[in-house]
Amino acid sequence: MTTTSRQMILGMHLGTGYGSQANAWRAPGVDPAAYTDIEAQVRYARAAERGTIDFLFLPDNLAITPSMGEGIPQATIDPVVTVAALARETSRIGFVVTGTTTFNEPYNIARQYKALDVTTHGRFGWNAVTTADPAAAANFGQTIAERPVRYGRAHEVIQAVQALWGSWGEEAWTRDKDSGRFVDLDQVRPVGLRGEYIASQGPLPIPPSEQGQPVIFSAGGGEYGLTIAGRYASGVIGAAFTIEDARAQRRAARQAAHRYGRNPDEVKFFAGLMPLIGSTVEEALARRRHLDEVSAPRRVPYLGAMLGLPLEPEQVDRPLTDAELADARPSGFDPRSQRALEVARQGWTIRDILAHGVIDYHPTPVGPPCVVADYMQEWFEAGACDGFWVSPDVNEDGIDTFVDEVVPILRERGLFHEDYQGTTLREHLGAPAQYGLDPRVWQEAS
Amino acid sequence: MTTTSRQMILGMHLGTGYGSQANAWRAPGVDPAAYTDIEAQVRYARAAERGTIDFLFLPDNLAITPSMGEGIPQATIDPVVTVAALARETSRIGFVVTGTTTFNEPYNIARQYKALDVTTHGRFGWNAVTTADPAAAANFGQTIAERPVRYGRAHEVIQAVQALWGSWGEEAWTRDKDSGRFVDLDQVRPVGLRGEYIASQGPLPIPPSEQGQPVIFSAGGGEYGLTIAGRYASGVIGAAFTIEDARAQRRAARQAAHRYGRNPDEVKFFAGLMPLIGSTVEEALARRRHLDEVSAPRRVPYLGAMLGLPLEPEQVDRPLTDAELADARPSGFDPRSQRALEVARQGWTIRDILAHGVIDYHPTPVGPPCVVADYMQEWFEAGACDGFWVSPDVNEDGIDTFVDEVVPILRERGLFHEDYQGTTLREHLGAPAQYGLDPRVWQEAS
Ligand SMILES: Cc1cc2nc3c(=O)[nH]c(=O)nc-3n(C[C@H](O)[C@H](O)[C@H](O)COP(=O)(O)O)c2cc1C
Ligand SMILES: Cc1cc2nc3c(=O)[nH]c(=O)nc-3n(C[C@H](O)[C@H](O)[C@H](O)COP(=O)(O)O)c2cc1C
Repeated sequence: MTTTSRQMILGMHLGTGYGSQANAWRAPGVDPAAYTDIEAQVRYARAAERGTIDFLFLPDNLAITPSMGEGIPQATIDPVVTVAALARETSRIGFVVTGTTTFNEPYNIARQYKALDVTTHGRFGWNAVTTADPAAAANFGQTIAERPVRYGRAHEVIQAVQALWGSWGEEAWTRDKDSGRFVDLDQVRPVGLRGEYIASQGPLPIPPSEQGQPVIFSAGGGEYGLTIAGRYASGVIGAAFTIEDARAQRRAARQAAHRYGRNPDEVKFFAGLMPLIGSTVEEALARRRHLDEVSAPRRVPYLGAMLGLPLEPEQVDRPLTDAELADARPSGFDPRSQRALEVARQGWTIRDILAHGVIDYHPTPVGPPCVVADYMQEWFEAGACDGFWVSPDVNEDGIDTFVDEVVPILRERGLFHEDYQGTTLREHLGAPAQYGLDPRVWQEAS
Repeated sequence: MTTTSRQMILGMHLGTGYGSQANAWRAPGVDPAAYTDIEAQVRYARAAERGTIDFLFLPDNLAITPSMGEGIPQATIDPVVTVAALARETSRIGFVVTGTTTFNEPYNIARQYKALDVTTHGRFGWNAVTTADPAAAANFGQTIAERPVRYGRAHEVIQAVQALWGSWGEEAWTRDKDSGRFVDLDQVRPVGLRGEYIASQGPLPIPPSEQGQPVIFSAGGGEYGLTIAGRYASGVIGAAFTIEDARAQRRAARQAAHRYGRNPDEVKFFAGLMPLIGSTVEEALARRRHLDEVSAPRRVPYLGAMLGLPLEPEQVDRPLTDAELADARPSGFDPRSQRALEVARQGWTIRDILAHGVIDYHPTPVGPPCVVADYMQEWFEAGACDGFWVSPDVNEDGIDTFVDEVVPILRERGLFHEDYQGTTLREHLGAPAQYGLDPRVWQEAS
């Protein structure tokens, strides 16, 4: 393995701000008020940057999540406000911020994202989503439209945003004190886009950033999602429970890019990962058991459904019986069922089966740092992904643990860079230069 | 004069970021790239806070300003991004940010502004404007609607935003680690507003700030503007060239508040002020002459029009002749004409007449700090305003000069506080507590 071989790209998920586990806010040492506390997010961003993580990923919701009632915090208070604050406390790490194409006007998001790209010196990325949550739509007096409409608008919005980003010529900002010429307006051009869903005249009054303009990410696949990934995305935020599934998703994104005239290598596929780290497997499980002490019993019936067994909350502290294990059938409705059964067969109590993260949103390697590194290496070398977006269980110490214990192993194995190779997110991703629309994929919007 | 007597409230205008003079970006010591440089804005915010200025005022435009072509920079790159960065570098000063009701969805601005209010610990205010610029409308594929429509929407948007701000009960955020209750959703209520122009279901997932919710400002008067000022505003950003005009504007805002069932003292009227400070009048004029060295000749014909005289750029360095002074008639189309004539009669060259700021957007007291303080005292004691929004000519040194030289005189005279009296913008303004809609002025939107 040489240093010129392909290396993985890593994102760190800030999630709710507390971490990816529902009870992260209740973990020891965590300030339960961190939801509104930028200082906490600054600590997490700095920890990730210390580990030369390529980008922070911030999800977003445009509605209160019903899980708040069950004690599970909302995503970040506001990703733009958060990133604007984090920008000044970091200098190399990128920021990938989720924002909807459905309930934003292109001029407004083009402006805020470009402002963030310029003030972060080219470290900004936009994860463009279409939003399928009816509660979000209701906050805008709307209902969720069918995919053809949502994605029709998404294409127009992304194209308008990219056109606006490119409306200020690369050399337009003369700011020449002697001549008194602040801007050469001959190099600043309106975009004059008018589609079926949106219109914007432009120009945007913002010069290029060190990376030209923000990079685009997308999340989710499917026929429609792939039209976004294929045309615009430099990164795809993925979710897969098996190497096979991840490979299929990655291949689909790469094929979509090819279909739109791009080089498939321009689209990096990121697999989700929720590592549970301890110096031993038992210590890792103890960490998670402690976190879920109260909530674990409530999840037992769902685990039962995954295994085709009628399990009750009271049974949480016993292993499955031989008879139950013989009867168990992994359910087809949940892709995590097979792994749940494998863990159950190892003889763990139900609480420990749950502590293995078998009903987490992403795969959960459990144990010492090398287990996590092995897992990542296997996926990466199998072509399942170009890197990972890592969701620590509890941000307060989970980012440090990943950075201090997993990252060095990945580096030792030549799988991850020793240091940032560039200063912009585009460089971190190896994404080609782009300013304004990509002529290879641009088609007149209606 | 005792310390319990009424004191003025002061705002500092960040303007383009460079200062209020078109050539501020070309002044000595100014980095011409400050437009995209948050560090420069941080310095200015800290300087203003050192002077215990009550708030920073950030204007906004939703289009590129044509004056960019003449070397005059745009307003701030993005006020939300800027304030999010400044928030962490200051602890007491408030932020009043201009945002349009016409091209924003209430949920989006309610969220970002409340996020800023929470993360600044209650120091945020929204200057709600309706935007009359056709270029802004074109950036949203629209044209500027008539006032009844723009202001009809403005009322709905402001009410929806205030309702969303109040949707999370004051005690709702339990964040109790022991019980695992993060939020008491019984205290979080949808707002379910549906008007003629906008609708929003809510709730907003953000707890109250230290001041409950942001305060509202408005800018501009007129029949329609006063309906905004009267119902919602804690502060009015004014523009007046004479004490009489300012008193009339202030009285109109106070009467409007009274009409909507509020105490007139709840609406503070801020007069605009563009001080030109030097240790002598001559030194102050020299500062301005230097700043406008190249551009002054271009303004001569306009000065001529104000005085009813055919003046040419080449004449910039001579005073008006006796014959011209005898012929001069202040023009009725520009309220600044009378003062321009008064200055001309003092025998200054045309360049020095212009250097007196006679065609600036706000009155320009010229000379040593006590001249500025005298001016402010006279207006304040005449009931022309409750305070000022001060526009330094060049932010880089103008804020320091005002803070170090004018503020101490105002304090000595008991006209301005010795230190911040509270921690929130609401406290700085003496605005009453408000959370959610004001029941005194709330009427069902349609
Ligand atoms: C891994 C992953 C992360 C996502 N993150 C977000 C998010 O933070 N906010 C959001 O509104 N949607 C998010 N989405 C939702 C997708 O953008 C998309 O709306 C969703 O998958 C529904 O698909 P559809 O729009 O094709 O119906 C995410 C999807 C995936 C797969
Ligand atoms: C002192 C002052 C400052 C203003 N600042 C802004 C601003 O920063 N951005 C903006 O869009 N409008 C601003 N306005 C414009 C007003 O909100 C209003 O749109 C304008 O006066 C036109 O009036 P109309 O909307 O009643 O036609 C300002 C007005 C005044 C008087």
